[in-house]
Amino acid sequence: MGLLIVGSLGLDTVTTPFDKVEDALGGSATYISLAASYFSGPVRLVGVVGSDFPEEYIRLLGDHNVDLEGLQKIEGGKTFRWGGKYHYDLNVRDTLFTELNVFESFDPIIPESFRKSKYVCLGNIDPTLQLKVLDQMDDPQFIVCDTMNYWIEGKKDELLELLKKVHVLIINDSEARLLAHEPNLIKASKMIRKLGPDVLIIKKGEHGAMLFTDNTIFSAPAYPMETIFDPTGAGDSFAGGFIGYLFKSRDLSPNSLKAAVIYGSSMASFCVEKFSTKGLEDLSYLQVQDRFRGFLNITKFNDTE
Amino acid sequence: MGLLIVGSLGLDTVTTPFDKVEDALGGSATYISLAASYFSGPVRLVGVVGSDFPEEYIRLLGDHNVDLEGLQKIEGGKTFRWGGKYHYDLNVRDTLFTELNVFESFDPIIPESFRKSKYVCLGNIDPTLQLKVLDQMDDPQFIVCDTMNYWIEGKKDELLELLKKVHVLIINDSEARLLAHEPNLIKASKMIRKLGPDVLIIKKGEHGAMLFTDNTIFSAPAYPMETIFDPTGAGDSFAGGFIGYLFKSRDLSPNSLKAAVIYGSSMASFCVEKFSTKGLEDLSYLQVQDRFRGFLNITKFNDTE
Repeated sequence: MGLLIVGSLGLDTVTTPFDKVEDALGGSATYISLAASYFSGPVRLVGVVGSDFPEEYIRLLGDHNVDLEGLQKIEGGKTFRWGGKYHYDLNVRDTLFTELNVFESFDPIIPESFRKSKYVCLGNIDPTLQLKVLDQMDDPQFIVCDTMNYWIEGKKDELLELLKKVHVLIINDSEARLLAHEPNLIKASKMIRKLGPDVLIIKKGEHGAMLFTDNTIFSAPAYPMETIFDPTGAGDSFAGGFIGYLFKSRDLSPNSLKAAVIYGSSMASFCVEKFSTKGLEDLSYLQVQDRFRGFLNITKFNDTE
Repeated sequence: MGLLIVGSLGLDTVTTPFDKVEDALGGSATYISLAASYFSGPVRLVGVVGSDFPEEYIRLLGDHNVDLEGLQKIEGGKTFRWGGKYHYDLNVRDTLFTELNVFESFDPIIPESFRKSKYVCLGNIDPTLQLKVLDQMDDPQFIVCDTMNYWIEGKKDELLELLKKVHVLIINDSEARLLAHEPNLIKASKMIRKLGPDVLIIKKGEHGAMLFTDNTIFSAPAYPMETIFDPTGAGDSFAGGFIGYLFKSRDLSPNSLKAAVIYGSSMASFCVEKFSTKGLEDLSYLQVQDRFRGFLNITKFNDTE
């Protein structure tokens, strides 16, 4: 078996109405790996950093049972950096800078021992690279993939080729509308699933997430939170919780997919409670299960008659 | 007992990307009454129309067991008219015109036989009028009230006085943020509940609705729909289904309130499937219950381990 995670590792400079951090641990593969690590270890990471990537971040990932054999460290290179600023209501953010650095020439090489992984999570990177990853895999059986408007607009052909090969696509609502050229999300979901993925998940930020399969529509709320400190990484944490739970349960039934959406939403809610990856660093599995039960509490109803 | 509904009756001219109707039946009291009528009759309506208000609309309301003793018909007066146009994605609408007509001098007079009603639903009208209604009631025990940004901005004092007297406030997310001066809805809900209403419902359009009480947060999705023909009246239909169910069940427990939110969402979903009030005209209670079960299907999950 094995769970492979490919994506970015970076140093984030984030400003919110509450605080500012510089060169904090970030990147899609980072958040996905940390979130997934609570369900089953080890998770296998493939990514690239520069020689400026702090040792403490490497240790942190190692402490979470992340197998770093596939982490390339480019001597003399600089790590990918991203800077963003969130507005007052936290739903809007401006990207202040993006320095690709070592990420610009990233060539994902999957170590021999990782190639038999049956579960694969492709974090949000260039679809050309996502395809390159899949080409190296022996016989992946469950592939989850994330993408963004930048690739939908700029690398449509490569993305469409990729979508034919993945089982689950996770995107947000505006990306779904863009990809399908259709404002109605239910219609858009059908059109996108025809492009390849059996399962589509549409993330809606503070409004939760929706799961679409052949016969299932499932709607999950976001966890109601008074204190959102830093939304960075919420979507990646969702993906990590989602695939982490499925990898652990070895059950891809509709019921299990629904539970995975709730576990994904749980990890996203932990993520945004603190700056950077802090919210994902010191959890117990008991806390994760508690959050899951919290979701049950806020969604359960029955006819009282 | 008895359920009293006060609000507007109007003639709507609505343009959507799909079609246009002129002088169709509209108004908050209309939608609330029709939606509530599926749960328990008769419902008691108080409102005003002009002599141009078509007889067939009067008959329609009567056919739905709406008691029209409190409907004032101003001879020679013109009925309230509203014109609106929905954009391509149906989430944005422009008001093209508002002609208050007989509504401008509306003085809600509650017939003697209506004053003992224990359940009251105050549709979205001037809070001064909503207060006037309450002043005439004998001993109302459950008061649901709707309002909008126009009154939050223009009649804040009167609205605050009203809120001290109502049990449930139903508003949308932007109105909640405006009323509380707080972008976070969970924080906003606490601040608004301190203004009076024990129960707050925040409607989020295509993202569903949230219920807040002392110890309960409940999050309901919107019903996933491919064909939304006309969003007009969805919020009022929600209110009608909500109070209609509670009036029928005589149960104001948290579980019953949650079920009422789902019945409200069900009526809203029927409303938007057709133009004007058409979606609320020919339902069976079996269809309403089917829709309720549909909500169960799209929200239910459990841990599969």
